[in-house]
Amino acid sequence: MDTEERPGKVTLAQIAETAGVSVPTVSKVLNGRQDVSPPTRQKVERLLEVHGYRRSSRSAPEVPLIEIVFHELDAIWAMELILGVEKVAKDTGSSVVLTQSGTRHAPGPEWIEGVLRRRPLGVILVFSALPQEYKQQLRSRSIPFVIIDPAGDPEPDVPSVGSANWSGGLAATRHLIELGHRRIGIITGPEDMMCSLARLDGFRSAMTSAGLEPDPSLVSFGDFHVEGGYERAMAMLRRTDRPTAVFAGSDLQALGVLEAAGALGLRTPEDLSVVGYDDVPVAKWSRPALTTVHQPLRKMAEAASEMLLRLHAGEHTTTRLELATSLVVRKSTAPPAA
Amino acid sequence: MDTEERPGKVTLAQIAETAGVSVPTVSKVLNGRQDVSPPTRQKVERLLEVHGYRRSSRSAPEVPLIEIVFHELDAIWAMELILGVEKVAKDTGSSVVLTQSGTRHAPGPEWIEGVLRRRPLGVILVFSALPQEYKQQLRSRSIPFVIIDPAGDPEPDVPSVGSANWSGGLAATRHLIELGHRRIGIITGPEDMMCSLARLDGFRSAMTSAGLEPDPSLVSFGDFHVEGGYERAMAMLRRTDRPTAVFAGSDLQALGVLEAAGALGLRTPEDLSVVGYDDVPVAKWSRPALTTVHQPLRKMAEAASEMLLRLHAGEHTTTRLELATSLVVRKSTAPPAA
Repeated sequence: MDTEERPGKVTLAQIAETAGVSVPTVSKVLNGRQDVSPPTRQKVERLLEVHGYRRSSRSAPEVPLIEIVFHELDAIWAMELILGVEKVAKDTGSSVVLTQSGTRHAPGPEWIEGVLRRRPLGVILVFSALPQEYKQQLRSRSIPFVIIDPAGDPEPDVPSVGSANWSGGLAATRHLIELGHRRIGIITGPEDMMCSLARLDGFRSAMTSAGLEPDPSLVSFGDFHVEGGYERAMAMLRRTDRPTAVFAGSDLQALGVLEAAGALGLRTPEDLSVVGYDDVPVAKWSRPALTTVHQPLRKMAEAASEMLLRLHAGEHTTTRLELATSLVVRKSTAPPAA
Repeated sequence: MDTEERPGKVTLAQIAETAGVSVPTVSKVLNGRQDVSPPTRQKVERLLEVHGYRRSSRSAPEVPLIEIVFHELDAIWAMELILGVEKVAKDTGSSVVLTQSGTRHAPGPEWIEGVLRRRPLGVILVFSALPQEYKQQLRSRSIPFVIIDPAGDPEPDVPSVGSANWSGGLAATRHLIELGHRRIGIITGPEDMMCSLARLDGFRSAMTSAGLEPDPSLVSFGDFHVEGGYERAMAMLRRTDRPTAVFAGSDLQALGVLEAAGALGLRTPEDLSVVGYDDVPVAKWSRPALTTVHQPLRKMAEAASEMLLRLHAGEHTTTRLELATSLVVRKSTAPPAA
């Protein structure tokens, strides 16, 4: 049972009295137990929210868990994030709980029920957003949460860690311009993701500050997959005025561009330079090895875990942390053919 | 506290009396608590072992956890295994705890302490072996365990899931022979791993049953990494009597072989056919896409998780489950040049 209180704050007993239920029932709701009727649960949740109830984190269970939640666990960069969280967990004697749930916009309802029962010392969400209701449920249980947001689309009131997408797009494009490319195509990510727009804006800024006008017909939105990169590259590279270089918004898209170039008999980098994004392990194994923008995924996950532990300890922390990206030059870029 | 007992079995009270300590102290040891002196802990552990104490699994905690332990979490196939465990966990309302610990031969001591505190409903170990002491500690807490053993090196007294390495080696080699290759090299895995030996034996059987004598100088042990594959392929391909095909013991080694071929100006598959092993996602993205032996990692993890749940429910289960491998023909193999 959970009856600790802090001065000036509402107690479980007060919540119970207002709701017309017993203190153990309120406690059950707090702990995500299933043996409470839905109407009672809803009433108690609403009162917890209205009164801004906060459980003391001293009541955390003996087994310290850090939970990381993905909507897409088989994304190629998921393992890098897991490794970052695992490192911090091991250093602090915690264990990592791994969940896959929901869509890019929110974990599913089965997740929020489960996490209230598990009572981890904190949650790292690889999502762009979190519904207000979930935020409130986590806050009232004093379960801190941090969003890792490779898409760079953070909500202002949620602690989050991302990386510098605009700077990455700028660096990739500058590299191509410095090699002598003038006609450069871009396949960025999906149109509804901030990271795609930031990388595209970085590309545009690099072009215009070099006095180059980006050709709108060489700007394309992608889907971050190999096949999507292949199709969009085919459309660009079949043209008689084809670009001499393509900045692909992800390493997987870049692999698709390499494949399209090969299918059209174009050599990389002699006939076409290609830059990827992310620097996932496959980038260095591709043939030729990919020049790409390194997104420090493992460091981002470590930073998010440390932020979480500070929140768990009751410290204040920055709301948004953005780590630097950096260009990694390998074999897929070269000066254009004369 | 933990005082349930089963008829005819030793009770915690009896263990406590023999050890000259209190029942709560024995209970603390059982739960992996740290506030027990090492000599007392050792004495109690020994008595638990001698008397074959088994905790009832009815005392499992309310939050059901399935734990998966790796010694090398950034192995390229780790994510496939995680996805398999995650699927079964989600279907049964459990959560996945992920730990990285120890070496290929055993998880570290910090792991065994932690798992006794966490009390998962079961443990899946991606290891070739488990020390006798750990087995006993898990058994006395009624925490069932299953080994997933991609190395195919199971201990007879431990439930395990693997795949058919010998058949995989046979199928890969037969495919090359059927294409018309006669001079075939092999780079298998490390010499001290059963999977390497099984794949090599499958290769040899395919060769001899086709009336071909494997050239011992074209048989090489590798390390399952890209660089190792590159170096060993370089040694084979620089010879004037180079092979027309190489069976690489892993997809990463196969990528190294492709790179070596490229560096020597040999085209794949026109001048050199290459077969990988595992069918990890990178195999289909390589250029050319790799012909490889599919090891059903996700299914292996699902099977191990289901085996674990049956053990947790007190059912008997097969000790060793071996799933089939299958050849996936892509673009890296072709008949030899005339």
